[in-house]
Amino acid sequence: MQARLEQLGAFFEPSSIAVVGASASPGKVGYNVLFNLAENRRRGLLRAELYPVNPRVRELLGLPCYPRLADVPSPVDLVVIVVPAKYVPDVMREAARKNAKAAIVISSGFSEVGNWELEEEVVRIGRDAGIRILGPNCVGVYDPYTGVDTVFLPRLKALRDGRELVSSPKPPRGGISMITQSGAFGVSALDYMAGHNMGVSRFVSLGNKCDVDETDMLEFMATDERTRVVLMYVEDIRDGRRFLRVAKATTPVKPVVVLKAGWSRAGARAVQSHTGALAGSDEVYEAAFRQAGVLRARSMAEFFSMGKALSMQPPAEGRRVAIVTDAGGPGIMTVDACEARGLEVPELPETTKRRLRELVQEGVLLPFAAIGNPIDLTVSVDARMYEEATRVVLEDPSIHGVIVLALHHPPGLVEDFVDRVARLARELGKPVVACDIGEAEMADYVRRRFDELGVPAFEAPEDAATAMWALVAYGEVRRKLGGLTTSR
Amino acid sequence: MQARLEQLGAFFEPSSIAVVGASASPGKVGYNVLFNLAENRRRGLLRAELYPVNPRVRELLGLPCYPRLADVPSPVDLVVIVVPAKYVPDVMREAARKNAKAAIVISSGFSEVGNWELEEEVVRIGRDAGIRILGPNCVGVYDPYTGVDTVFLPRLKALRDGRELVSSPKPPRGGISMITQSGAFGVSALDYMAGHNMGVSRFVSLGNKCDVDETDMLEFMATDERTRVVLMYVEDIRDGRRFLRVAKATTPVKPVVVLKAGWSRAGARAVQSHTGALAGSDEVYEAAFRQAGVLRARSMAEFFSMGKALSMQPPAEGRRVAIVTDAGGPGIMTVDACEARGLEVPELPETTKRRLRELVQEGVLLPFAAIGNPIDLTVSVDARMYEEATRVVLEDPSIHGVIVLALHHPPGLVEDFVDRVARLARELGKPVVACDIGEAEMADYVRRRFDELGVPAFEAPEDAATAMWALVAYGEVRRKLGGLTTSR
Repeated sequence: MQARLEQLGAFFEPSSIAVVGASASPGKVGYNVLFNLAENRRRGLLRAELYPVNPRVRELLGLPCYPRLADVPSPVDLVVIVVPAKYVPDVMREAARKNAKAAIVISSGFSEVGNWELEEEVVRIGRDAGIRILGPNCVGVYDPYTGVDTVFLPRLKALRDGRELVSSPKPPRGGISMITQSGAFGVSALDYMAGHNMGVSRFVSLGNKCDVDETDMLEFMATDERTRVVLMYVEDIRDGRRFLRVAKATTPVKPVVVLKAGWSRAGARAVQSHTGALAGSDEVYEAAFRQAGVLRARSMAEFFSMGKALSMQPPAEGRRVAIVTDAGGPGIMTVDACEARGLEVPELPETTKRRLRELVQEGVLLPFAAIGNPIDLTVSVDARMYEEATRVVLEDPSIHGVIVLALHHPPGLVEDFVDRVARLARELGKPVVACDIGEAEMADYVRRRFDELGVPAFEAPEDAATAMWALVAYGEVRRKLGGLTTSR
Repeated sequence: MQARLEQLGAFFEPSSIAVVGASASPGKVGYNVLFNLAENRRRGLLRAELYPVNPRVRELLGLPCYPRLADVPSPVDLVVIVVPAKYVPDVMREAARKNAKAAIVISSGFSEVGNWELEEEVVRIGRDAGIRILGPNCVGVYDPYTGVDTVFLPRLKALRDGRELVSSPKPPRGGISMITQSGAFGVSALDYMAGHNMGVSRFVSLGNKCDVDETDMLEFMATDERTRVVLMYVEDIRDGRRFLRVAKATTPVKPVVVLKAGWSRAGARAVQSHTGALAGSDEVYEAAFRQAGVLRARSMAEFFSMGKALSMQPPAEGRRVAIVTDAGGPGIMTVDACEARGLEVPELPETTKRRLRELVQEGVLLPFAAIGNPIDLTVSVDARMYEEATRVVLEDPSIHGVIVLALHHPPGLVEDFVDRVARLARELGKPVVACDIGEAEMADYVRRRFDELGVPAFEAPEDAATAMWALVAYGEVRRKLGGLTTSR
């Protein structure tokens, strides 16, 4: 078991990598894979030795190139395979002779197009040789800590007028590990997370799951120190019992969020035609997730909001939420969203209201601020009002989490309120999430600054409520499944 | 009735405007209001005469300034009032003597802080003089066609390091009219719409609704030629019967989308403390909206997705949707989201599948493309595949709308697929919505290009499904309430 887990480590921290099917033509998959790895090696990020394999060239991107895998003069840990499907078995046989630990088969043309026999041949070779296989038909691995990166979509693409635009950006380092059955969703998730200031620890695309599946990877992430939260996109789960067992052991230690596509009737049909797998009844999945303490997202916005919150904030010790805002209407929308999620937005206790009224008398809060829940600081808000009002509700023992719904538009609100609120959140150790509506430069700035300081920020009140709900729900999972205490 | 409607026109197309409380201090509300109007006049956008009123200065922003409203030497159509609350009755009496048609009271300090008597005094003066009043406690009007703009939040704000960032941008011209009870939500909505390529016809913030209310403005928008869709943010509706009657007369002609905040129990309490109004039971609102053919949004994302779709695309003639994509996983997510919305994603008819298989034989589509619903063109997609596959499903009479879920990442996909798909949508007259996941420059480019060409584009599959649902639901409203035919 331990050995098997260590072997999965070869996907993320190999001592050497061979790219079989490396290409000299920019734009080709075999070029892009080698380019990413070579670039990461040049920057000192990738420590692994790197061996391009291609019979038609002697050198690629400054690296000596070998005609066949067998010709590589040193041991090879990880083999990345991008040759056409029919050649993959031969490459796997060579990998076996090189005692490789792991192979990423990016090539497509296997079971996803009905070519089951070829896929089974590959599996057989891998099993006999003890090589773990990722794929086929996947985009592989992205690991910003070790520099392993086989996600081959071009970073830049040219428009017809010649301009080059960033097309497939990759997120920075962070605590989110993602396991995805869909390569296309994985690539767009990397793009999305890069744009939403979400840092990644390990990213892995499973493809056809001929060998390594979601449960293998979940088991690996469970003990991976860099992983704070696991996000899983799945269409089917191969071994439900084993998944349940592994997930149950994982969720008391770190949160697991699943987006299970194909939960609708027509969606299940689409899964079947996409993967060839019977998706199984959604009720069964739902019960299993619940039993295992796995949190379930029903939309893309939920999936990422939950992952972002859980990677940055502690779980909540209860369901009672306070809202501090400068915007009456959006405050009410946030209340609605919280209640729809099963959170409580209670009246504040008398002692807390008294404390807030004292702040009015001291001239810190305005006489026409609304001392309720939400606390509405109004359009005349300034940074100190945010700081002091947030402090009061964070110090209230009956409140378990705070949503700071800080629209950036009021003229007197300078951006240092972000730093003040984030400092309080760190000091007081209760979950805080932020929301600012809009697409202006200032909205981007405020959300990014919150994110950088560890307070996850969202554009929609409903996403902020979902984020807080995830922290509450995960707190409940920990208490129920007997994990570590949630206090810090 | 006609006269009353015409009078509301003075808020958007006045022949002259006085700003009472205009200020010489940049940053103050009275400065920003005058600045926006003066700037729009200088640009030739605002045709109305403009009269600043302030007893302490002789000239403001190059315009002669008058000590009192009474001193303005010409007639005044619209009076914008930004003086402290206690002076507002005096200004209103002067407005009455000037025979003003309309007044926007931006000043706060009225019923929203319990000052009901002062507000009633203002109402009385207005009623006796036949002046329609917007507010108090509102941000007023933004009309990008006529240049009336009292939304006073500063366009730019400075960071502590001296950099200036855009803080409150305003959207370009378009077909969306917005009526909002919350000024804060209104301001953030303008910001959001500006960033999502959504064009606005009229924007009006109701504030305390001492006179002009949501139904007055809805009645005005119903016959307003520039308005293609009405978006309403409400916390309470003052006269339910009248609203029902007016909405019922409006929805057969143009779609109305309502975001009713305070629909949860805690939300209703928050509305009460925010506006002093009893929100009323949500079931009553729900029944009224349904009866009147008003479409209801339950979240910010729904609200804007519906508005964007309805302002750009024709209603659908049925619920059957086809999905064309290059991304298997997100395709399944879209199917789930459609079904959750009550849309159908049926198997394609045999004739249509045959047509698609012919395209495979002709070498237009790839042999491993999935000929189902979704049609998955795979990561090897190019622009022509999008065009031809979309054409086939748009020409299928059993399909009522198409979601083009075009992730921009595949290397061979050049951006002219957007132009090709948009041209087809125009030619074939069936609703089409687009989706591209990610935050990369290329994602922005693709979505913006779709928007510019009239196909509303979204970042999340669920938002695209909501958009299509809005087109379907509005088609049903038109057929049920006997509006114009939906065919084009």
